Amino acid sequence: MISFIPITGIGKINQGDDLAELIYEALNDLLPLSENDCLVVASKVVAKAQGRVEKLNDSFSKQKFIEKESKRILRQRDELIISETHHGFICANAGIDESNTEENTIVLLPIDLDSSAHGIRMSIKNLSGVDCPVIISDTFGRPFRAGETNVALGYSGLNSFADLRGKKDFYGHDLRATRIALADEIAAGAELVMHKDSGVCAVLVRGLPASYRGDGRGSDLVRSPQEDLFR
Amino acid sequence: MISFIPITGIGKINQGDDLAELIYEALNDLLPLSENDCLVVASKVVAKAQGRVEKLNDSFSKQKFIEKESKRILRQRDELIISETHHGFICANAGIDESNTEENTIVLLPIDLDSSAHGIRMSIKNLSGVDCPVIISDTFGRPFRAGETNVALGYSGLNSFADLRGKKDFYGHDLRATRIALADEIAAGAELVMHKDSGVCAVLVRGLPASYRGDGRGSDLVRSPQEDLFR
Repeated sequence: MISFIPITGIGKINQGDDLAELIYEALNDLLPLSENDCLVVASKVVAKAQGRVEKLNDSFSKQKFIEKESKRILRQRDELIISETHHGFICANAGIDESNTEENTIVLLPIDLDSSAHGIRMSIKNLSGVDCPVIISDTFGRPFRAGETNVALGYSGLNSFADLRGKKDFYGHDLRATRIALADEIAAGAELVMHKDSGVCAVLVRGLPASYRGDGRGSDLVRSPQEDLFR
Repeated sequence: MISFIPITGIGKINQGDDLAELIYEALNDLLPLSENDCLVVASKVVAKAQGRVEKLNDSFSKQKFIEKESKRILRQRDELIISETHHGFICANAGIDESNTEENTIVLLPIDLDSSAHGIRMSIKNLSGVDCPVIISDTFGRPFRAGETNVALGYSGLNSFADLRGKKDFYGHDLRATRIALADEIAAGAELVMHKDSGVCAVLVRGLPASYRGDGRGSDLVRSPQEDLFR
C-alpha cells in the first residue's frame, strides 16, 4: 500500500524562508517521518523561497519573462505559448505562474530543480535523521491528452525508472520495453491531495518499495530532442 | 489521505471470465469496499476477459494487427510505430501488448473502454451494494518526457477534471487555467503498486474526495486533433 498524505499548516512561503525546516515542523505536528517515506513539494514554494518572484510592469511583461526563461518557442496559439525552458522542459508559458502569488507578480521555475530537491532532502535528513527522497513537482499539460497532470521536475533519492527490462512477466516471458517513469507517477498521485486552491504545498508519500530508491535525477525524464518524434 | 492498495490473488484471466466477480471476490479476502473507494483495472485483463487475444502467424503479423487497430500511423522509427487508434489514443503499437500473454499471442486494447469500465462498475455495485468508480488503465509513453506512465483509457463514475477555474487560490485570486486530469493522476498513482512483473491487475484507491465523483468519460481526456498543437 502506498499512501499520499497532505502536509497541512505550512502557510505562505516568502523569499529566504527555510522550506525544509517549515516542512519538517509541519510534519512533526502531523506524523513523524519514517523509512520508505518520500516527499513531494510544489515547485511554486521552492521558487518563492529562492526569490524567483518577479514584478510585472510596462517594460517587463509576462511575455518578456517567458522569452527570457525559454530556449526556444515551439508553438503559439492566442495567448498560449509552448516553449522549451532552459531546463529542457516543454510546457506552457515556460512554467511561469500567476496563481498563488501577490497581485502583479509572477513566479518563475526554480533554476536547478535537481539541486533544489537534493538540498531539501539533505536539510530534512539533518533535522530528522531520516533520509527521505524528495520530488519537486509542477502541473504541465501534454500533447494528445486533455488536462494537466503533475510531473516530477527535479528529484533526489529515487530511481528514475522502474526498469522491468530483463524481468519476467506473470507468464514467464521477458519484459522487454517497459520503463516506468516512477517520479512522474508519484508526483501525479500526490497532486490528488494538493490542488492549487487548497494551500497544500507538500505531500508525504508513505510506503514506497525500497527498490524505488536510487540516484536518478529529474533530468533523466527530459527526453532529448534527438529521441523525440514530436517536436 | 489517499491510499493505493494492490488487489492480490486475482490470478490469470481468460476469455469469458467474469472480471468484476473475480475482483469482488479478491477484495472480499482483502478488505470490503466502502464509500469513497475507486478501482483501477489494467486494460490487459479487461481485454483478455473480452477475448481480445490474437494468435500471431505468418499471415497475421504484429505489424498487420497494428495497422488494423489504427486510424493512422503518425510516426515510425525502427520497430516503433506511433499511431492513432480507433479510440483516438496516440500510443506505441496501437496499444498492442505481448507481455503477460501466452507465447505467440498478442492482446489488443478493449474496443470501448468507457463502456467496459461502466460494466465493471455496475457489476460490482450489484455484487457489493457499493457504487465505486472504475478506471481502466494502461501505460503509454509520451512526447517530451522519457519513460511511460499509466493513464486512464476509460472510466465511469468520475469527473474528468478537477476544474479549478473560478475557484480562488491561497491569495484570493481567481484560478483561471488549471484543469487537472484526475483519472490520469489516479491511474498513475495506482501503477506504483501494479507493475507488469507483479501479477497485480487491479488496485483499490481509498479516500478520494467526494468532489471527484461525477459523469466524466475517458474520451474527455482524448484531445481532439484540432486542439492539438503537436500532431
